[in-house]
Amino acid sequence: MSKGFKKRIRQENTENSGFGNRASGRFINKDGLPNVKRKGVNVFNRLSWYHTMLNLSSFRFITYLVVMYIFINLIFAFIYYLIGVEHLTGIDKSDPVNEFIDVFFFSSQTFTTVGYGRIAPVGFLASLVATFEAFLGLLTFAIATGLFYGRFSRPRAYLRFSDIALVAPFQDVTALMFRLAPYKNNALTDADVTLSAAIEINDGETLRSNFYRLETHLSKISTLALNWTVVHKIDENSPFFGFSADDFKNTNIEIIVHVRAFDEVFSNTVVQRSSYATEEIIYGAKFVPMYYPDKEKDSTVLDLDKINAYQRTEMPVFDTEKL
Amino acid sequence: MSKGFKKRIRQENTENSGFGNRASGRFINKDGLPNVKRKGVNVFNRLSWYHTMLNLSSFRFITYLVVMYIFINLIFAFIYYLIGVEHLTGIDKSDPVNEFIDVFFFSSQTFTTVGYGRIAPVGFLASLVATFEAFLGLLTFAIATGLFYGRFSRPRAYLRFSDIALVAPFQDVTALMFRLAPYKNNALTDADVTLSAAIEINDGETLRSNFYRLETHLSKISTLALNWTVVHKIDENSPFFGFSADDFKNTNIEIIVHVRAFDEVFSNTVVQRSSYATEEIIYGAKFVPMYYPDKEKDSTVLDLDKINAYQRTEMPVFDTEKL
Amino acid sequence: MSKGFKKRIRQENTENSGFGNRASGRFINKDGLPNVKRKGVNVFNRLSWYHTMLNLSSFRFITYLVVMYIFINLIFAFIYYLIGVEHLTGIDKSDPVNEFIDVFFFSSQTFTTVGYGRIAPVGFLASLVATFEAFLGLLTFAIATGLFYGRFSRPRAYLRFSDIALVAPFQDVTALMFRLAPYKNNALTDADVTLSAAIEINDGETLRSNFYRLETHLSKISTLALNWTVVHKIDENSPFFGFSADDFKNTNIEIIVHVRAFDEVFSNTVVQRSSYATEEIIYGAKFVPMYYPDKEKDSTVLDLDKINAYQRTEMPVFDTEKL
Amino acid sequence: MSKGFKKRIRQENTENSGFGNRASGRFINKDGLPNVKRKGVNVFNRLSWYHTMLNLSSFRFITYLVVMYIFINLIFAFIYYLIGVEHLTGIDKSDPVNEFIDVFFFSSQTFTTVGYGRIAPVGFLASLVATFEAFLGLLTFAIATGLFYGRFSRPRAYLRFSDIALVAPFQDVTALMFRLAPYKNNALTDADVTLSAAIEINDGETLRSNFYRLETHLSKISTLALNWTVVHKIDENSPFFGFSADDFKNTNIEIIVHVRAFDEVFSNTVVQRSSYATEEIIYGAKFVPMYYPDKEKDSTVLDLDKINAYQRTEMPVFDTEKL
Repeated sequence: MSKGFKKRIRQENTENSGFGNRASGRFINKDGLPNVKRKGVNVFNRLSWYHTMLNLSSFRFITYLVVMYIFINLIFAFIYYLIGVEHLTGIDKSDPVNEFIDVFFFSSQTFTTVGYGRIAPVGFLASLVATFEAFLGLLTFAIATGLFYGRFSRPRAYLRFSDIALVAPFQDVTALMFRLAPYKNNALTDADVTLSAAIEINDGETLRSNFYRLETHLSKISTLALNWTVVHKIDENSPFFGFSADDFKNTNIEIIVHVRAFDEVFSNTVVQRSSYATEEIIYGAKFVPMYYPDKEKDSTVLDLDKINAYQRTEMPVFDTEKL
Repeated sequence: MSKGFKKRIRQENTENSGFGNRASGRFINKDGLPNVKRKGVNVFNRLSWYHTMLNLSSFRFITYLVVMYIFINLIFAFIYYLIGVEHLTGIDKSDPVNEFIDVFFFSSQTFTTVGYGRIAPVGFLASLVATFEAFLGLLTFAIATGLFYGRFSRPRAYLRFSDIALVAPFQDVTALMFRLAPYKNNALTDADVTLSAAIEINDGETLRSNFYRLETHLSKISTLALNWTVVHKIDENSPFFGFSADDFKNTNIEIIVHVRAFDEVFSNTVVQRSSYATEEIIYGAKFVPMYYPDKEKDSTVLDLDKINAYQRTEMPVFDTEKL
Repeated sequence: MSKGFKKRIRQENTENSGFGNRASGRFINKDGLPNVKRKGVNVFNRLSWYHTMLNLSSFRFITYLVVMYIFINLIFAFIYYLIGVEHLTGIDKSDPVNEFIDVFFFSSQTFTTVGYGRIAPVGFLASLVATFEAFLGLLTFAIATGLFYGRFSRPRAYLRFSDIALVAPFQDVTALMFRLAPYKNNALTDADVTLSAAIEINDGETLRSNFYRLETHLSKISTLALNWTVVHKIDENSPFFGFSADDFKNTNIEIIVHVRAFDEVFSNTVVQRSSYATEEIIYGAKFVPMYYPDKEKDSTVLDLDKINAYQRTEMPVFDTEKL
Repeated sequence: MSKGFKKRIRQENTENSGFGNRASGRFINKDGLPNVKRKGVNVFNRLSWYHTMLNLSSFRFITYLVVMYIFINLIFAFIYYLIGVEHLTGIDKSDPVNEFIDVFFFSSQTFTTVGYGRIAPVGFLASLVATFEAFLGLLTFAIATGLFYGRFSRPRAYLRFSDIALVAPFQDVTALMFRLAPYKNNALTDADVTLSAAIEINDGETLRSNFYRLETHLSKISTLALNWTVVHKIDENSPFFGFSADDFKNTNIEIIVHVRAFDEVFSNTVVQRSSYATEEIIYGAKFVPMYYPDKEKDSTVLDLDKINAYQRTEMPVFDTEKL
């Protein structure tokens, strides 16, 4: 960090970031969640299992459901086995393994309420357990229905951010820019972006992070159908005013991005966050266009694989001594 | 396009349309979705199947469900058949076709959890497959429940737009107008409309589209129960100021409409978009009223079939040379 | 209507009511819905059956479900009967009535997926129909699940409005007032109210309704837990300035009320509308308080049955000639 | 209450609290709900059972479901018993108790639609009742599905408030402060807080509560991931300006807190309220920090068990006579 640069930051530290000066590490993870661990309060109160189930990948979610299904059936099979196979009709009593297999399948036929009846409870105890298993089965599928619906219908922005942010010449100055694009068949309108920066400042003795709001060249767009290149002009109002390539490399910077838009399918506001840390900022590069007219000239093609495509560019030289 | 008219556009091009100058073809399709094709990213990540299922017509949605139901049962029937019909009780073993028919129906009785029991699994393998089929059946219906609910409960504006926009005399100038009306038994309030225009400009060498915000005579209304005629006055602030009938015919114009209202049944904001291209703009015509008092004079009748009804009207002649 | 009073209305007619001058009868019904009939477009497109099902009373909703259940079972019973009872096992073939009764119950056991198996399909056709009936049954209950959830979870304000609006002395002038109170165990905050008036004006030849926005003494309150008396001061800015008791009686007036609040249980904005017509406005009366401290003095009691309680009051005499 | 202090409150009483002067007891309970009892209107109209079911603890909710399940089955068992066990096949007729046990389990097998078929209805009446029980069963589980989903998906802030508010030195004056922290794995952004105070004033004869809006040092923060200490500076604009330790102890005060934030998982605004009464305000104490860097210095740890941790602090002495 060039010694003199702290003086160059003219904007005042904003206090309402919600992060304190004693916080450490990245503030916002790449996936948009704050980098905070919670302690105290027991784990059941601290975790919302619904939020957890909503954030699982589809594959893990299905796996959990299947494992739980097998596990519940094993428990009930064990209970029926303890009660005694003589309280179930139609059991293959040739040997204990076959008995257990049959009570396991009886359990699953009860839990799913298929109830073929080939195996059926006759005694009081077996009937009672089966009564509760069927009830539990239905409630479980009621909960699964809610989880499936919660998972699909959860409004999400489905935005892809470029992995890197670039510093490039822009109009008569330079600008920090990154881009984002919607990658699914949703329809976003009235999008706006809020940028802030956490810059680590060495004020003689301690390291502390200051927060700055970054202005954007265009902070709102009407229809978010193509890619959107978000541009923060590095002029006098920017905390990066006068930063050299080395300043960008040697200062701990984190650009925090917060995008908000209206999804017309969900009729709901959706948000997505991301962040760019020092090592994800490239000085002296500009993005290559990622959309073009299609062959028939009657539509526009957005090539999502080009979102990170950039090329090197010459940077103007500023006389930082004069700043 | 009359050569001189570009100079006449006094308003500045707005940059925040979200569409670039290199985009081609209509920007917003008639149904309100952007005219953009996405490429890159594999198709599974690019399509939100939930958004897709929500946008299907009811008929196609039901058809998909039925086809999927038959398909899944065929697959399971095939599996049971491979395992061997001797592992199912009650199968009609007169010939292979009857066997397959019986395993198919056994599969459907398992998948729907009817489980009559006339046909029931006895071996380990058949029981295991049946266990998973019943589980899959319940999850499938859990998903179907979510899809049905997602489809009905999706907040939609249910607005019908006139197919055409008209240019008619209005107050002391002319105005571009179209109308819209709610056609379902929903209750919309606090409606507002945003209009913008994409106008293709030939600046000597290249064709490019500029975007302009269009002001509306009334941009908000309290209760959207009757039809709403949206009026854009073509005065000095309009990019169409001084356009002749020929200018309207020969310039590539697209009027992009964005309506937002509050639905009191869903308690949610709903939006609907549409657009009018050059060929959908009629110069010198005005709309015929589409609502009138009913016979008993105690209510108002809105005749939705008249939404496109217009009549020709004389246009004032402007001395465009003076503009 | 006193001849001179039209001149006294100083406020300008607002154009954005969304109702035209040719509309007739009450604008907003007492239940808050606009008094408009729709014509054209076929009835299936014009009615959102989901909105219709959501607005039914609980009793009618349940009745519809039961009737539909019996009806579907009768149709399927008829189909099975046509196919022939010999394709079902376990049918009581003593006489045609018993046969029909048994196929009816077989149908219901299939539709609900109970599937005892005492009666079970054996032929291809009966099995096929049963396969589809079970599928239809599950989809029907999937839809019912959605409807039940849609009905409970629909955000509603649950406000009770006083049946009448009063004109009473207020501060140094008079005011038009009515009151409203939440009657359910929901928690409303940040409530605001918008008032407008439709006043029928006889301008010599035709009768037309003009719309005016009415200012309210307090238009927002933080917590809507007790009753809220909404007060419109009749001062110079009011269209009712100078109205005598006779003017209120002889003019066609409609006060349109729009309340919006945030429900903390649904975490959603809820709205409710109502209206007061000429015959529901009482001149010279004021409301009796409807809440009081409870006996232990540690809570407040809101008596909802008193919402319409008022007492006559003396009105100040204004020299309307001077206005 | 020091006699002279009423004069010191310079701010005007706000009228839009929604609470009247005749209300009594705490205004907002600790859990955020208004301290109001409703009377009149019958209890079924006054209670939204859906709101009630949503607010039950998980344990009570499950208990209610189980009790209801047993209760419904007992009723149907009784009906089948009255109809006569001879209308059901497979009943163990050894003695009346066994008969009742078998009809009870038949009922539960019908209600859950398991329908093993070991016991099955044969007569018209028993079949009819079973038909309706299966239908009722499915509707009940449809409702349960809705309730489960309503319970999980209900947007909630999951904020923990400190039990106590403190009065501590702050900058050059003193301030009243409390803190709050998110305790679950949800992601809150754009949080804002609104504070108001109810202060009981003895104006000679009667006791009445006045309401004041309290300004906060920071009323909005961008990311609510760590704890947030809400600070109300006690300067000239505060109704507490010049309050001594005794004033805080002897005056009936209630600080009403209203926090609003955007939850990114639910994509919805969530709110939570709380209040601090006189006995929950500690004069001369400050909070101990509750977050710190983790050992690896790459993340921040929030210790939720420390939310109430404070230490005594010296208070500046103000010459209240001069105020």
